[in-house]
Amino acid sequence: MESFRVRSLYDFTGEPNTAELSISAGQILTVIRTDVGEGWWEGINDNGRSGLFPQAYVEKIDNCPPPLSPPPTLPPQNDVGWNSHPNQTQSSAPTEDDWDDDWDNDETYSEIGGNNVPPVENMYSNDRNLNLNTVATEFSAETSGNMDGRGTVTKKSLNRFSSYVKSGLESYILGTVNPTPNCYKIRIRKENETVRWDYINSPYTVQIASPKKASKMGGLKSFIEYHITPSFSNIEVARRYKHFDWLHDRLREKYNIISIPPLPDKQVSGRYEEHFIEHRRMQLQEFINYMCRHPVLSQSEVWHHFLTCTDDKQWKQGKRNAERDQMVGANFCLQIEAPDKELLASNVESTMDMNINSINQIDQALKALMQTVIDQQKKCTNMYKRELQKVGESFFALGTAFELAEKGMFSDFTTDIKRMGSTYMTIGKLYEDQARVDWQCLADKLYIYKGITGCYPDIFGLQRSAEQKKRDCEKNVQMQQPQLLEIRKRTDVLTYAVFAELTHFHSEKDGEIKQSMKMFLQEQVNFYKNIVSKLEDTLQRFQ
Amino acid sequence: MESFRVRSLYDFTGEPNTAELSISAGQILTVIRTDVGEGWWEGINDNGRSGLFPQAYVEKIDNCPPPLSPPPTLPPQNDVGWNSHPNQTQSSAPTEDDWDDDWDNDETYSEIGGNNVPPVENMYSNDRNLNLNTVATEFSAETSGNMDGRGTVTKKSLNRFSSYVKSGLESYILGTVNPTPNCYKIRIRKENETVRWDYINSPYTVQIASPKKASKMGGLKSFIEYHITPSFSNIEVARRYKHFDWLHDRLREKYNIISIPPLPDKQVSGRYEEHFIEHRRMQLQEFINYMCRHPVLSQSEVWHHFLTCTDDKQWKQGKRNAERDQMVGANFCLQIEAPDKELLASNVESTMDMNINSINQIDQALKALMQTVIDQQKKCTNMYKRELQKVGESFFALGTAFELAEKGMFSDFTTDIKRMGSTYMTIGKLYEDQARVDWQCLADKLYIYKGITGCYPDIFGLQRSAEQKKRDCEKNVQMQQPQLLEIRKRTDVLTYAVFAELTHFHSEKDGEIKQSMKMFLQEQVNFYKNIVSKLEDTLQRFQ
Repeated sequence: MESFRVRSLYDFTGEPNTAELSISAGQILTVIRTDVGEGWWEGINDNGRSGLFPQAYVEKIDNCPPPLSPPPTLPPQNDVGWNSHPNQTQSSAPTEDDWDDDWDNDETYSEIGGNNVPPVENMYSNDRNLNLNTVATEFSAETSGNMDGRGTVTKKSLNRFSSYVKSGLESYILGTVNPTPNCYKIRIRKENETVRWDYINSPYTVQIASPKKASKMGGLKSFIEYHITPSFSNIEVARRYKHFDWLHDRLREKYNIISIPPLPDKQVSGRYEEHFIEHRRMQLQEFINYMCRHPVLSQSEVWHHFLTCTDDKQWKQGKRNAERDQMVGANFCLQIEAPDKELLASNVESTMDMNINSINQIDQALKALMQTVIDQQKKCTNMYKRELQKVGESFFALGTAFELAEKGMFSDFTTDIKRMGSTYMTIGKLYEDQARVDWQCLADKLYIYKGITGCYPDIFGLQRSAEQKKRDCEKNVQMQQPQLLEIRKRTDVLTYAVFAELTHFHSEKDGEIKQSMKMFLQEQVNFYKNIVSKLEDTLQRFQ
Repeated sequence: MESFRVRSLYDFTGEPNTAELSISAGQILTVIRTDVGEGWWEGINDNGRSGLFPQAYVEKIDNCPPPLSPPPTLPPQNDVGWNSHPNQTQSSAPTEDDWDDDWDNDETYSEIGGNNVPPVENMYSNDRNLNLNTVATEFSAETSGNMDGRGTVTKKSLNRFSSYVKSGLESYILGTVNPTPNCYKIRIRKENETVRWDYINSPYTVQIASPKKASKMGGLKSFIEYHITPSFSNIEVARRYKHFDWLHDRLREKYNIISIPPLPDKQVSGRYEEHFIEHRRMQLQEFINYMCRHPVLSQSEVWHHFLTCTDDKQWKQGKRNAERDQMVGANFCLQIEAPDKELLASNVESTMDMNINSINQIDQALKALMQTVIDQQKKCTNMYKRELQKVGESFFALGTAFELAEKGMFSDFTTDIKRMGSTYMTIGKLYEDQARVDWQCLADKLYIYKGITGCYPDIFGLQRSAEQKKRDCEKNVQMQQPQLLEIRKRTDVLTYAVFAELTHFHSEKDGEIKQSMKMFLQEQVNFYKNIVSKLEDTLQRFQ
């Protein structure tokens, strides 16, 4: 499309770290794309910065003057697909057994969808600000808040940190919650100065098969079902995206000192439907793989319930149990058996500082790389493909012009040059196809790890707040010695857990990330070899 | 750079078929490049069209209001380098032996130069409008003009067609010029219905060596000298660009029924100096090669003088002779021995119509392909290189972040991922280097042929005018039969020459163009193989 210029009618503040562009009323913008998603346009401002903004917030220049009415409603961000926050969707707190009833509302569209946006621009959704001081401050301001007995199960809300803020930390440190009797215990080991989660006794894998459309109510409602088979049972279960979403909510509630891998965004598909559904499957497989490799998450009860339950009644019971779990938030630490050895305050502080710094660096680098990778994926699908097809078309057109000059008596060369044109058009298509096997796979992997590092600010904040709470108690003259010892012990358990989680992250990095880099390189080699072979074939056939 | 916006202060009409953008006073433009060449900026207008315009014609927005003074002088177009018209430079008509004196004016800068524009956007300069009717009309309007006896040697002027308009056609058709005694004769053969120039008796080649900077007047003036060695003499001669330019003028004057290959634009080099000079050499080699292959041009006296003369005095004599040649323009046909057989008017017309149409198609296809090729060359040098380097930098940065996390105890993986980053940066550089061996070479070849097809509208126009002139004479009751027969004969000779020239073009196409396509493909294969090998090496070194 040709670009055109618009004047903004209202202020619009773009979400930070997204593709959104903040604009102020009266600003002139050059619109360069209108097909980014319903209600959104892409444009360039005075400073040459480009980004997305709501179409309704601007008017084409040379139209009527700006009206004085209030700005219109923002277009639905989740449908646009460059950075939606699934964790911010306003799902109500789970209440009753609405598994197959209430949850179906509005889902047919969002799972099967009719939007035209390709799912290329999936940004990972746990995009939290890494300013740890802010987190810690926000958190400690809360520790005096009122708590109910069962730790904290929070509604997800639009407040970015709320689910961590109401963390149950105070009740855990002060010991006001009792561990559930006979609950599953998680051990932390210390081996050669390395603190780690206990190894998984019986490792297993879980396969997610190509999703199928299913329907109910006589075909009135259709949805996508993912068929999941754990290796330990070999029994397939069918789950929908909303079930994953529910599971993810439970995991985030329960394990706020553990990084939970992010789910893919809830998105629509439209004309990219097949690719989209298959891509969604691959993203869910990445989520599942991370879960299976994690020493704590892989043993989680709610996860096992999700993986294995085939009976409707048992499903509802398990769902109720999970939602009523007392050992959530910081109180999950009551399930942990950590080494007895007291941690040295100075050691803890220096270890934490180092990790805060390095995780921050890795987070930034992952974020930048992921942007680059997604950008390349987009460019393979659009720009590079188009460029090569243009090259191909130009050669082909010359072949056609020569052909006309010869009035149907084609020389060999005419055929050769037209074949050459076709080859470049094919290579253009290769770029598009390749993007799904190398750039997209890498992006999916980075999405998971970017989600993982994105959890750390909250985890670090929680650990700091625990230390602070402990120090507050130590200053409290009314506090008795045995009680103080308990408080110190519980703080240490939480810190041990954070250390163990960091160890897991680093081992993932050397294993999984490395593996995916190798796979990426291999696919790149295959891709360029494919180009070479197409070109060589064309060259050899030249008469 | 970040773009910014400007308001145009004056109207500016861009040269058609160039990168220039017409702007009108008061228009708002977004400037996207300021480093395109001294005095020129690149920007986008309201309609999304981008192009170059004089910097002095616009003001940055939020500055002072537009002044009312007249527009400033245009920046020097020849120095910018995207589309200068060497044939339009206002060189004065050759007068005296100014070979080593007057011609040096202003040349030091333009040959050695200090401009920063890479010579990527060389547009070919013979960009004539293919509207043959216009040509024919313009031409016939001239046939009644006054002529001097020696055919026509014209000043080059800014009038696009002027050198063809004053073609000497009338004097030739009416037979008012006598052939120079003992002049070199050129034969046209007819073989199996194909009309062709006689074969070259002693084919030869000419090599142009890497140019050298030379200087005179004690180093005050420096210039580039091209050392040229014809295979038939094996004696090297030194020529400057201006000598080529003088030669080209003579060729265009003398052979207006033959397509003269275009010279590269007279351009400046700047920081790309080395590449520029080498590229200029390759372009001149292409010009020379075409000359050597052409049955008529390769035997041209002025060309032989240019190739062989080493003596100053002889040089001046040869120069004078060439400039005083009587057999120029249409009168060149007096040197031709064509078949005696009279041409059938209906055959001539249908053959011409077919060729006008097909050459037009080929011209358009060549033009479009050349645009694409130059565009790809630019993109290899800039965008693709940048994209791959960005990929490389992102991988490298992740490696660095991991390294920091490990506090100097680098894992193998850290090294691997950094190496992977470096590999992609290297591939980015490969794109830049490759552009010179495949895209640029192809562009140089297309530049020649685009120049060749670009001559045809004038050639066809001349042939039509000759036919028209003949018909006018046939209607003229005062014209006597023997005189009419002579007129018909001379018209046929001219038409035979056009046919022979067309045959030469088609044989070039099946030989030279095909060969350059094969070379291009081979270089592309080498390039992608190179990428494969770099990636494979990186992959194999993964621990």
